[in-house]
Amino acid sequence: MAKAPKNAISPTRAEDYPEWYQQVIRAADLAENSPVRGCMVIKPWGYQLWENMQRALDDMFKATGHQNAYFPLFIPMSFLEKEAEHVEGFAKECAVVTHHRLEPDPEGGLRPAGELEEPLIVRPTSETIIGATYAKWVQSYRDLPILINQWANVVRWEMRTRMFLRTAEFLWQEGHTVHATEAEAIEETEKMIDVYADFARNWMAMPVTIGAKTPGERFPGAVETLSIEAMMQDRKALQAGTSHFLGQNFSKAQEIVFQSESGSREYAWTTSWGVSTRLVGALIMTHSDDDGFVVPPRLAPIHIVILPIYKEESRSAVLEYIDSLATALRDQSFHGAPIRVEVDDRDMRGGEKKWHHVKRGVPIRLEVGPKDMEKDSVFLARRDLGKSVPMPRQELIANVVELLDEIQQSLYDKADQLRRDNTVTITNEKDFRDYFTPQDPESPEIHGGFAWCHFADEESLQPLLKELKVTIRCIPREANDASGTCFATGKPAAKQAIFAKAY
Amino acid sequence: MAKAPKNAISPTRAEDYPEWYQQVIRAADLAENSPVRGCMVIKPWGYQLWENMQRALDDMFKATGHQNAYFPLFIPMSFLEKEAEHVEGFAKECAVVTHHRLEPDPEGGLRPAGELEEPLIVRPTSETIIGATYAKWVQSYRDLPILINQWANVVRWEMRTRMFLRTAEFLWQEGHTVHATEAEAIEETEKMIDVYADFARNWMAMPVTIGAKTPGERFPGAVETLSIEAMMQDRKALQAGTSHFLGQNFSKAQEIVFQSESGSREYAWTTSWGVSTRLVGALIMTHSDDDGFVVPPRLAPIHIVILPIYKEESRSAVLEYIDSLATALRDQSFHGAPIRVEVDDRDMRGGEKKWHHVKRGVPIRLEVGPKDMEKDSVFLARRDLGKSVPMPRQELIANVVELLDEIQQSLYDKADQLRRDNTVTITNEKDFRDYFTPQDPESPEIHGGFAWCHFADEESLQPLLKELKVTIRCIPREANDASGTCFATGKPAAKQAIFAKAY
Repeated sequence: MAKAPKNAISPTRAEDYPEWYQQVIRAADLAENSPVRGCMVIKPWGYQLWENMQRALDDMFKATGHQNAYFPLFIPMSFLEKEAEHVEGFAKECAVVTHHRLEPDPEGGLRPAGELEEPLIVRPTSETIIGATYAKWVQSYRDLPILINQWANVVRWEMRTRMFLRTAEFLWQEGHTVHATEAEAIEETEKMIDVYADFARNWMAMPVTIGAKTPGERFPGAVETLSIEAMMQDRKALQAGTSHFLGQNFSKAQEIVFQSESGSREYAWTTSWGVSTRLVGALIMTHSDDDGFVVPPRLAPIHIVILPIYKEESRSAVLEYIDSLATALRDQSFHGAPIRVEVDDRDMRGGEKKWHHVKRGVPIRLEVGPKDMEKDSVFLARRDLGKSVPMPRQELIANVVELLDEIQQSLYDKADQLRRDNTVTITNEKDFRDYFTPQDPESPEIHGGFAWCHFADEESLQPLLKELKVTIRCIPREANDASGTCFATGKPAAKQAIFAKAY
Repeated sequence: MAKAPKNAISPTRAEDYPEWYQQVIRAADLAENSPVRGCMVIKPWGYQLWENMQRALDDMFKATGHQNAYFPLFIPMSFLEKEAEHVEGFAKECAVVTHHRLEPDPEGGLRPAGELEEPLIVRPTSETIIGATYAKWVQSYRDLPILINQWANVVRWEMRTRMFLRTAEFLWQEGHTVHATEAEAIEETEKMIDVYADFARNWMAMPVTIGAKTPGERFPGAVETLSIEAMMQDRKALQAGTSHFLGQNFSKAQEIVFQSESGSREYAWTTSWGVSTRLVGALIMTHSDDDGFVVPPRLAPIHIVILPIYKEESRSAVLEYIDSLATALRDQSFHGAPIRVEVDDRDMRGGEKKWHHVKRGVPIRLEVGPKDMEKDSVFLARRDLGKSVPMPRQELIANVVELLDEIQQSLYDKADQLRRDNTVTITNEKDFRDYFTPQDPESPEIHGGFAWCHFADEESLQPLLKELKVTIRCIPREANDASGTCFATGKPAAKQAIFAKAY
């Protein structure tokens, strides 16, 4: 057997966190950079994670009354101009289609031809194109609410990209709803951020805080943006999902008008909400370790991998034993779906094979050889704990669902502990500066985590926040309602926010 | 109750088939044209059909060993130039991204800015971008086969569009596989066209013929293109899916090279295969009638709709009775998934409500009022037959799965009968001309259907085919192997093809 390296991933998290992240993605075969600037290739193992996320979220959207539909990839340039803040937010980084064919270039190769009368934007988000359609659909209060979600690709021409976290093209879902009343639209906005929090906590095993964005951090064109914020292992914040109450801004820009029950003409109230393949990045950074990817069982493409160990003479007996074990495991249901078991009988050195699955994060690894068979037992390793223990076959079969749930819970608890250990309340600027200033110049990534602070005025804090590269993440729903004094200015402050460095 | 119109769709199929198609889409709320030229909005009812198709196909792809992945939306222009036939096939109709931001135009509004060094093409199909990635993945015969599928949107700048059948942007899946040997790649090409035929026949209830395209009709860059061809109700052919054996054309253009077991460097053999939202168009045109959409149960978003009929005093009793009926139906499984039942209790006139579901094609409609309750029975209407019959509740519950299967089969049989009634063998040009010349100048759509003919040379037939607007659909797998004489030239002909007008 190949000698196991001390750690499968180099550098480790402590050595170079950003580079560790890239190396985990590589070692786990999740994705890679493509020949197209800023776009990535999502490889099968990474795409299965996204499929599992999609399935779970889609079920939650449907359970809350939403239906899926599909709207065009392209947005006419003039549509984007209608909502002033919105265009300001997206015009600077969008892919613009200007021609509709290629023709031979006299100097060789091809060149664009067939110029369009009006350029088309590849959607960076679809409020404008979907809103234009809704304006036709909505005539009367009887047409409301409209509760639609779209699974799609979008493009934002990011200059600095990082796989899953920030790519020019990414996959996401975007919900777009229309309501007759302000109260109903606000209720929808809240409901969907709760769905996202539920998904993050119970599927991703990722603790999150629900809160409202400050005006400077809102979605361009929104009246209110709610977000869920998670803490990564380098103690930076990651915004994992947003839900926007758009007020009547988009309905006024796009004339989404309805006749109310009393006969008056009224502008509708709209919301939008989305999560993206960024969640895969969040998943990687929340749970993975220096041996590679760690995935919570509820999202794992494979729950259990079984590695047969045999010499030629014991081959058929071991494989038969394993086959019956795999069937007994697959017959069980974990949260409504059959347990996913892979038997890896590839001709490969044992150490290499083991590390293949460790790096890919399979929650449970079983090794079974002739000696285990004799004892009617298996050798079991939990990916989250790392060490192997023998376990009687019957005990495994009886307890496997519980075991998967235990792994899921333990990943959540560990992430929650990290967040609690790295969250403080700060009341003055000196402590704030100390907290966010790296202790060790060699490791600029290592710094404090989340700081809960009362603050008076977002605008006046900007120089300090820019200097320290800190942002206001959100005003948490669970924040202390009591007013206090602003940590920076000492002025009376009604609200408390979470401050953090962020992805 | 509102008086039922004679037919819900105007014009009828006989009056104006192309317009009837548009009106069915409208009446069934499947899709609509968008403000973006050539792009459509797929509405929830239409998108659910696509989701059901996706789920079924995806399961079939996975059962045949494929995995999903995701590749970039954009293709650098230079990639397209590498395969000569391929660029010829797609350069004339593609969306070209030339800029990456918008800036204020001094004359008002916005204008494209930030010109790209190399233009990007929005993928019309992904052989080139996926091939470039595979070239990196493939080193040794151990890396083969690669069996990957992608669900994605693609863009082909069609000038004449028709909803679902031909749109600038459409949704599809594209499989892309790499093999060590020619035989294995050919086997894959055949296997996937069989998967498509299985899906068309057993899920869509749509009879199809499997065959090979003639050289003039092949996918640009393919060595061989297999297709499934279906007959629509106007007797035109619709190509519903294709599977391409690409030989070494793309591996040579993109350097997909591997070291064989014996150590030699060899070009790999590749395939690609796809079906698209065009299938929704095929589904509409295969089964729908002059009252609207008809959908086979296995793909229906809802299998059964229950319409309560009551006066205020009987309301709660009727709803309670229906609730228990719906539960008893939902508890049953139709081909592995629970039966999908909707209770439509909207406050709406009975006739209007009934026609709403007729036009949308729900396979079974139940009406239940106090009198039915007394007899412990329901009033049942099959969408495919149109008439209502009383049925004891217990009989319905006991036979509902069988009934859905019967509807599915009857739709297949009806479509198959149409195809048999409109397929002939033709051996001379005069009969060929007569067959494809409309009998009635007022109804140019009405003409013969499929003609099976021996032919000698594709090229020399072109003037005749162009004149009659007829194409060679395929050389059917099941064709008579015996050679004959060409229907047009009288020359010896080894092969028989299906000739038809086509979408």
